[in-house]
Amino acid sequence: MKKNDRIYDVKGFDLSQENMGLQETIFHNANGYLGVRGNLEEGLPEGMDTMRGTYINGFYDMVPMKQAELLCNLVEDKEALLNVADAQTLKCRLGDTTFSMWEGECENLCRTLDMNRGITTRTLRWHMPEGKSVDFDIRRMASFSEKSLFMIDYRVTSVDYSGRAQILSLHEGIVHNYSNPNDPRMAAESGDYLKKVAGKTIGDVSLLVSETASTHLRVASAVALEITRNGKPVYPGDGCLVYDEETHQTIFRMETSLTPGDTLRVVKYCIFTDSRRSPEPAQDALARLAAVREKGTEVLYQEQQEFLEEFWNRTGLSVEGDEELNQSLQYNMYALLQSAGTDGITSIPAKGLSGEGYEGHYFWDTEMFMLPFFAMNAPEIARKLLSYRYHTLPQARHNAMLLGHKKGALYPWRTITGRECSGYFPSGTAAYHINGDIAYAVVLYYLSTGDVEFMREEGFEILLESARLWMDVGNFYQDEFQINCVTGPDEYTCMVNNNYYTNCCARYNLEWVCRLGDAWQKDTEFWKQLCQRLDIAPEELPEMKRAAEKMRLVYDENLGINPQDDSFLQKPVWDLSRTDPKDFPLLLHYPPLHLYRYQVCKQADTVLAHYLFPAYQSEETIRKSFDYYEKITTHDSSLSTCVFSIVASRLGLHDKAVYYMGDSAKMDLKNTHHNSRDGIHAANMGGSYMAIVNGLGGLRMEESRVSLAPFLPESWEGFSFRFTYRGSVLEAAVKKTPDGSCRTELAMVSGHPVCVCLYGIEKVLAEGESITDTPD
Amino acid sequence: MKKNDRIYDVKGFDLSQENMGLQETIFHNANGYLGVRGNLEEGLPEGMDTMRGTYINGFYDMVPMKQAELLCNLVEDKEALLNVADAQTLKCRLGDTTFSMWEGECENLCRTLDMNRGITTRTLRWHMPEGKSVDFDIRRMASFSEKSLFMIDYRVTSVDYSGRAQILSLHEGIVHNYSNPNDPRMAAESGDYLKKVAGKTIGDVSLLVSETASTHLRVASAVALEITRNGKPVYPGDGCLVYDEETHQTIFRMETSLTPGDTLRVVKYCIFTDSRRSPEPAQDALARLAAVREKGTEVLYQEQQEFLEEFWNRTGLSVEGDEELNQSLQYNMYALLQSAGTDGITSIPAKGLSGEGYEGHYFWDTEMFMLPFFAMNAPEIARKLLSYRYHTLPQARHNAMLLGHKKGALYPWRTITGRECSGYFPSGTAAYHINGDIAYAVVLYYLSTGDVEFMREEGFEILLESARLWMDVGNFYQDEFQINCVTGPDEYTCMVNNNYYTNCCARYNLEWVCRLGDAWQKDTEFWKQLCQRLDIAPEELPEMKRAAEKMRLVYDENLGINPQDDSFLQKPVWDLSRTDPKDFPLLLHYPPLHLYRYQVCKQADTVLAHYLFPAYQSEETIRKSFDYYEKITTHDSSLSTCVFSIVASRLGLHDKAVYYMGDSAKMDLKNTHHNSRDGIHAANMGGSYMAIVNGLGGLRMEESRVSLAPFLPESWEGFSFRFTYRGSVLEAAVKKTPDGSCRTELAMVSGHPVCVCLYGIEKVLAEGESITDTPD
Repeated sequence: MKKNDRIYDVKGFDLSQENMGLQETIFHNANGYLGVRGNLEEGLPEGMDTMRGTYINGFYDMVPMKQAELLCNLVEDKEALLNVADAQTLKCRLGDTTFSMWEGECENLCRTLDMNRGITTRTLRWHMPEGKSVDFDIRRMASFSEKSLFMIDYRVTSVDYSGRAQILSLHEGIVHNYSNPNDPRMAAESGDYLKKVAGKTIGDVSLLVSETASTHLRVASAVALEITRNGKPVYPGDGCLVYDEETHQTIFRMETSLTPGDTLRVVKYCIFTDSRRSPEPAQDALARLAAVREKGTEVLYQEQQEFLEEFWNRTGLSVEGDEELNQSLQYNMYALLQSAGTDGITSIPAKGLSGEGYEGHYFWDTEMFMLPFFAMNAPEIARKLLSYRYHTLPQARHNAMLLGHKKGALYPWRTITGRECSGYFPSGTAAYHINGDIAYAVVLYYLSTGDVEFMREEGFEILLESARLWMDVGNFYQDEFQINCVTGPDEYTCMVNNNYYTNCCARYNLEWVCRLGDAWQKDTEFWKQLCQRLDIAPEELPEMKRAAEKMRLVYDENLGINPQDDSFLQKPVWDLSRTDPKDFPLLLHYPPLHLYRYQVCKQADTVLAHYLFPAYQSEETIRKSFDYYEKITTHDSSLSTCVFSIVASRLGLHDKAVYYMGDSAKMDLKNTHHNSRDGIHAANMGGSYMAIVNGLGGLRMEESRVSLAPFLPESWEGFSFRFTYRGSVLEAAVKKTPDGSCRTELAMVSGHPVCVCLYGIEKVLAEGESITDTPD
Repeated sequence: MKKNDRIYDVKGFDLSQENMGLQETIFHNANGYLGVRGNLEEGLPEGMDTMRGTYINGFYDMVPMKQAELLCNLVEDKEALLNVADAQTLKCRLGDTTFSMWEGECENLCRTLDMNRGITTRTLRWHMPEGKSVDFDIRRMASFSEKSLFMIDYRVTSVDYSGRAQILSLHEGIVHNYSNPNDPRMAAESGDYLKKVAGKTIGDVSLLVSETASTHLRVASAVALEITRNGKPVYPGDGCLVYDEETHQTIFRMETSLTPGDTLRVVKYCIFTDSRRSPEPAQDALARLAAVREKGTEVLYQEQQEFLEEFWNRTGLSVEGDEELNQSLQYNMYALLQSAGTDGITSIPAKGLSGEGYEGHYFWDTEMFMLPFFAMNAPEIARKLLSYRYHTLPQARHNAMLLGHKKGALYPWRTITGRECSGYFPSGTAAYHINGDIAYAVVLYYLSTGDVEFMREEGFEILLESARLWMDVGNFYQDEFQINCVTGPDEYTCMVNNNYYTNCCARYNLEWVCRLGDAWQKDTEFWKQLCQRLDIAPEELPEMKRAAEKMRLVYDENLGINPQDDSFLQKPVWDLSRTDPKDFPLLLHYPPLHLYRYQVCKQADTVLAHYLFPAYQSEETIRKSFDYYEKITTHDSSLSTCVFSIVASRLGLHDKAVYYMGDSAKMDLKNTHHNSRDGIHAANMGGSYMAIVNGLGGLRMEESRVSLAPFLPESWEGFSFRFTYRGSVLEAAVKKTPDGSCRTELAMVSGHPVCVCLYGIEKVLAEGESITDTPD
């Protein structure tokens, strides 16, 4: 792979509001804890809309969500990720003009995301209205080694300007979430959720503490500036730092001068801490600020680069022959890394930490679309993501109880701390498959890592409580185990009976509880203790086994497919070929009740089940299902095309696999869904990774081995990827042979010997060994 | 029937908040246009909760109804009946004490509703704290002959009191709907919807005009007092009438004196007019006020009594042998009369005009439960109720379009002017059976009256537009016509496929369009014009005929019953015998998603279909269905027991018929559902009437005749009722014979000869003729 495939830049871009909004997302800086939108330090001109935000993963307040009609136990408020403080503002005034890209003229304008170094930059030569010129070089970083740190490294170099240079820097403690006066719904939700607690300056440090209105969480931010001219300290020294109590902000002003060739460099260290992680956020912020200043920028940059070197070394994904695709894939993996909470009390918001879309909530997106990437490349992060779910089991039990269940746990459809935050239950709370999704991810992690300790301590309890819920929600009817009135992944059909995907998930969940139970019962003492701790009755697992065996998986003899649910096929087929292109996405143009009455899918549903649970159906059925659903799926959800790509790969439909993968991989970087301004589509990013590794690569984690069966798209030269399996790192390299077919080399890079299966040939590989084969 | 069965009184009642709230409903005065709660003129003591209200049928403003999640075309505001003005206040101060039932002591306390005279009274002897006594006699009336008039006739007679007597009378133009600080939802909805427009005094008349905030409807109220002492005028004369602009109210004060034996009589004429009916409500109010004052109280009382004499003469319903039941039935008929809008732009609110429950909305309640009473006893009112629906066809067409339909009209689930006001569409808007209900009522009215003119001008168009909707929402599948994803009457199951009730309604609707079309096509010219006016394509009716013939009416071979919908029987049966009595109604204790997963019914659904459409199933099936659904129906809806009573009668289950009828008939007067304080259960009142006439009486309107097959409950001596059929008045009298069985005499009271069928024997009866028979 060319080194610069991980350097994404845009040059001479247009300054439209739309493009600036998109760039705020694309060039955001985040590290799983902290996320800062790619706003401009100097702001946008008056009247241009911007979503200016700094977010801490899982830092939230309660927002009212009144229901139009009162029904028992409906959710009437929700958690919402807050914009916590604004430390981004830096303004540079030269002569009579404050720097802005909309004043004077910009030359060599360029924004860059350097994924090898983990920084974003903005560089340009600015021709001032007065006629002189200066160069700007602005770097931003959210540090992976010091997660509380966001840093701005701002350099102004005079080309031919001589005169005054004024620096204004702000640190604002009261900020609001994004609101748009044209959308009263959003405006209503951007209330005053942050309250001032304390603010002060301590030497050259600005410290602000705010508290949320109803959850009483505290956030502290500590900011320090270091300013040099041509490498020599200017501040601390000159300059004036003042805390304004009324507005709860700190204002820094300094005036100096520039002559041609001079470089003024402003380093702004911004530390964010919060009371969900720290008992004393303010003290903690000051200590961390002191620590990072002690290190200094060069060490911090170095740490960032080393961290990313290791990350890229572990993923090792590269596509030869489609540069744009390859770069998009790098971006997607990078964005996933930026998004993932790794502290066990957070997960991955649907939009990562790149924006406020979906209120920073965690959905099934994490487990089904993003966690697989981490399981294969950073299992320690995957485990943390599962631990987050383990820690919210009490809330999930409570949620089940609120919904009338007598046992088990039901995970919320969308949440931050574990309580249900979905306002429209028919396509929210009713999506019980979330339980099966989490169970699937637990098993996937276990298969990838063999981490028995995790399973014994946390994983099994998740599986068990989820399985208990299936036993409570389901019932036997005509010798089948039924699950009625739930909603599958496809939200264009709601509250149906025996959704194929849901029932597959439930069956798999129940099977794995029984499988682990069977295995662990041999360890009598451990099993006895476990039964005691988890209150497992002797008849419980046998009942689950029977439910799994008798699980209704709908099948239609005529079509030879799995209908999406019991009654899906009795509805008329929506004719997508006659639908006005302006009417997509359908959910914005048709009321739910109308959509529910047609065979039309927002996203992969049965097809997703075919990917995840291929053993439940013959390949013939899967092929027919794929063909059937492809015709009625709109892909209005961003979670759809990646799944179609994977299953197309499985079925040998190579052209389709590549076509769908392209949509998935380039969604954000190319803004193909026209809404990346609100934030990245994090799940789709994981999906595009799976489309390569699990789709093209055919990788499957199995109980006794990992198997692969890659194929190479015609237009590509090759592709390769690394993955971690049971602690060992392996690399698959797929190359075009001189005769135009492909050849795969699977090599053990490091670790203990593991059993692999390439194109159906099984072998145990030790470190340094490899096998090479070609598809049939 | 004893004369006093139409005089309901409560003596020496307790003064608890609960009881006073109930009395506010029971003793409300209304006339279909105007409704005044049975509040006390002097108000309640500080801290006691009251719903003080005066309502004009269909006078509303828009109330925001924010949805928790934004979905396409969801309703986000609703119409709500407004409390329009308060003219009730009259306070009498004797010496140092203002009269209140909570001061001093009350003797011979009595509240009466005299349904023969159409007035309510409150009488008592008040022992003042100071030791002296006066008698109060307060009468209230909402006039049927002058519908804008509400009148208070207030008499104070001194027993042994001598001294000052002060009268304070208020007329308030800015009032609010009921709010309860303990229920934030209600509080939020009691906003400032009335704005002051004008207020003044003109001689002894107080005139206030207010306007609604968003719909800009105007309400005018004109109030005049006439005061006499021992029959001699005191006011106009003494007294002081002042308009206070700031509070938009008029205050009247007068001071006089009383000596033992003196009677001070205050007559308060209160006229209400509004801009939905009158282009100049203020002038109209003044003119009407002058007119009623000209008439004077005695004439007004006389007119009221005459009006009611005619009403009672037409209904003639009487039960001998259960006085409490008989009185409840009289009350129910009276309350229905009080509730019915008769101007073609209003219908009957779910709570009549007795309270604010359900925001004054019209539901299917009118057509299915109340209109039959009027069709049989006051067809001119039934026609007005149907005209209301006809006039809202444009809104129903718009509603269908909003829901994605390409043709037809869909009536709103709840509304005032015709727009959908339901906030939770799965059990609101999705209840498409509303269309079939209205169609059924059109046909019922036609069968009862033979009013071809109405059918040609309005009725057929309703049927046709409704039928078109069925054709659009339904689809053929496996040679059956299906209607998917709708909600039947039973709201404990939502958005199901082929709800039996709905499909029956749709079939009946389609059949009648075809039947009328077939008949009318013979009149070539008329049919041609009609096809042109209603844009009827040649293939349209044949397609409807086919859909009707192929309509899927679910039937289960094993149980021999009609399942409520396609998947009802695959759900587990809710065990009502093991449900904690505290958990009823279930909807307050279980979330909808939970209820939807069980075989448990809030109300009659399939059983209602069996009543309405007996021809669609064998009696054997109906019997089995009745048994089956009886076990799983909670009757949490007030619309349930009356239906079970009717079908029990049909099946010869006499004990059950009487049992269920009792619950239905006494619901409000005995407050059996513990919520009559919010207003009457108007639909149930109509249902209790049907339980007698259509249930016990077995009355059915048919195309060529009216048939009856009464039976007499064992404990009764007899019952009788009159009804109007094709313009003729008939009377059925059922009497116990000396041997304990029963005998029915069916007599033609007045009108043209009609064909009747008694116990299966058909005969044409002319005026004055009768037939007598006994059941087999």
